[in-house]
Amino acid sequence: MEVYVLRLGHRVSRDKRISTHVALTARAFGAKGIYFSVYDENVFSSVRGVVDRWGGDFLIESVEWRKFLREFDGLKVHLTMYGIPLTEKLDVIRKSERVLVVVGSEKVPPEVYEMCDMNISIGNQPHSEVAALAVFLDRLLDKTFRMKFDDAKIEVIPCEKGKKVVEKP
Amino acid sequence: MEVYVLRLGHRVSRDKRISTHVALTARAFGAKGIYFSVYDENVFSSVRGVVDRWGGDFLIESVEWRKFLREFDGLKVHLTMYGIPLTEKLDVIRKSERVLVVVGSEKVPPEVYEMCDMNISIGNQPHSEVAALAVFLDRLLDKTFRMKFDDAKIEVIPCEKGKKVVEKP
Repeated sequence: MEVYVLRLGHRVSRDKRISTHVALTARAFGAKGIYFSVYDENVFSSVRGVVDRWGGDFLIESVEWRKFLREFDGLKVHLTMYGIPLTEKLDVIRKSERVLVVVGSEKVPPEVYEMCDMNISIGNQPHSEVAALAVFLDRLLDKTFRMKFDDAKIEVIPCEKGKKVVEKP
Repeated sequence: MEVYVLRLGHRVSRDKRISTHVALTARAFGAKGIYFSVYDENVFSSVRGVVDRWGGDFLIESVEWRKFLREFDGLKVHLTMYGIPLTEKLDVIRKSERVLVVVGSEKVPPEVYEMCDMNISIGNQPHSEVAALAVFLDRLLDKTFRMKFDDAKIEVIPCEKGKKVVEKP
């Protein structure tokens, strides 16, 4: 299954840290790429820097989101605290070959609820789009503890205390 | 099992959004409270506002972190991308009655690795302390889709499209 993320409502500079976390979470938990409704040099270059050092071909791009969402070929899942619990829909989602996960910030245009095939909640309490995306990908793909990137220049060797990394020339 | 969170390295104003996400994630995924190494009016009041409306007795406090960490009565687990995968330690962690999860930001003082009983990774890729905490709590407590707060003034009724909420007088 290929999973992509669409990040809506990013406000340049104000949201740069949260959006960077959203993008790195997408990559680290097995998504293929992330699309932003706006271009933010700061976020894009820091995510591309991570991809360059830590490997893989995770994609980050800006798109005209309405057109992109309308034309996406696959299942469109909007993460929202108002939606149906993921646990009730996981089996259906698993049947898709391509999934677009839509994560907004505080205000999401009402049409997003209509344009997506599913509105899915990771609990119905207010929390975080970073947390929602992480748990969604962890439960759907279960790749969290198996992520490996062949062309990585830097790799962590898990250890009990301290930090162990291998840098490849 | 009672789980608490200790948030280290919060920089006032710069980190307010990420730290608010950390705190709300702690609450929404079943932790009892969060302790900060610094007091940030902005973060504390927005989290307390959520607790007031959405219910429960989730606690947010600032502490002198070294003393607090040293004296915490229970298992101390530091989340770090350099640590041992959670999956290898979950059974041991589950035996504890009280757990303190320590989440830092970019720079964590080296002594934290020594002061904690375990250094645990949620994957060994760079991502987000919000994502790490969410997956840690989701996998450990599995309460994500069962969180209910009796004294909530506002509650979501999950639905396929749009937003349905009940406000209690």
